[in-house]
Amino acid sequence: MANYNIVPLTELVSQFERLPGIGKKTAQRLAYHILEQPPERAEKFAEALVNARKKIHFCKECQGFTDLDICPICADGSRDRSVICVVAEPKDIMAFERTKEFGGTYHVLHGVISPLDGITPDNLRIKELMARLSNSEVKEIIMATNPTVEGEATASYISRLAKPMGVKVTRLAYGIPVGGDLEYADEYTLTRALEGRNEI
Amino acid sequence: MANYNIVPLTELVSQFERLPGIGKKTAQRLAYHILEQPPERAEKFAEALVNARKKIHFCKECQGFTDLDICPICADGSRDRSVICVVAEPKDIMAFERTKEFGGTYHVLHGVISPLDGITPDNLRIKELMARLSNSEVKEIIMATNPTVEGEATASYISRLAKPMGVKVTRLAYGIPVGGDLEYADEYTLTRALEGRNEI
Repeated sequence: MANYNIVPLTELVSQFERLPGIGKKTAQRLAYHILEQPPERAEKFAEALVNARKKIHFCKECQGFTDLDICPICADGSRDRSVICVVAEPKDIMAFERTKEFGGTYHVLHGVISPLDGITPDNLRIKELMARLSNSEVKEIIMATNPTVEGEATASYISRLAKPMGVKVTRLAYGIPVGGDLEYADEYTLTRALEGRNEI
Repeated sequence: MANYNIVPLTELVSQFERLPGIGKKTAQRLAYHILEQPPERAEKFAEALVNARKKIHFCKECQGFTDLDICPICADGSRDRSVICVVAEPKDIMAFERTKEFGGTYHVLHGVISPLDGITPDNLRIKELMARLSNSEVKEIIMATNPTVEGEATASYISRLAKPMGVKVTRLAYGIPVGGDLEYADEYTLTRALEGRNEI
């Protein structure tokens, strides 16, 4: 039996398939969904894709995403410019903002040092961070990279550069997650939770 | 703390969120992924969306998706035009084509009768099916709607219309799925599997 290929459909399926976490079956389901919607829906979606990619770029200051020259967080005079929270990815900023507890500013590295993937310090926005630190305003940087081998290595690499500049370098606390269950905590996390215990 | 909203990003997230099975978190991950790709990727994706929706329409014959006037299956002279497999959705055609076992043609209803959702026979492509049946070439229609209450009701509704026209109406067999486990088969499926047992 011949293979009846609808070219524009196959092309749309393959575009969906290139998204992270979207497999062949899901990509097909999404493509069929688009075909079942009014044409305006597809056009709006297309417009949002192009618009986002065209209008959003890196903030000159923190290297996070923004559609402005300087992002609203860096431009906000009420934020504490003496503390910088250093994160690996732009989306990590949103995680901290959701806590509504951090009043400082951010710096996005756009990755972590990972020799196996060919990512060296030169590939990250570390130069830009150092330029900000040479500004005497900055008193502390909070290293908020993930608690992985690469995240740790990146934190200590930056720490070694920043300390001689007279900047205090801190790291997020390790411990058991709130609402977590001790039974499911691994031994490394529990060890760290014990080490970092606080008096109540 | 203020809410720092990047409008083009929020718009892209909400577009992803409108896709079936995509929640808030996944939509955000996909949107950030787009921002991290070269601009050409977003443009190609946008083009595929608009192209698919613009170029693909319903086949005049079977009502399936095609970018031609008559889809390649209906136009294929080697297919048996005396048997029509009636399915609810265009994607069901692909499921049958993958078996490489069906040499007849298809008809897509674009839904099933569902009074609770306000879908009556008039909302489906039943008129178009009847028009095809009045062509004396058609000897059998295979009702291949899902084995749900609505799928069954739709199958018997069409069956009542088609039989007086001298067309044989058949239904897909019920039974245990190949490779399935009896332990997990529900009692209705097992009952049907018993009723439909064959001599070996």
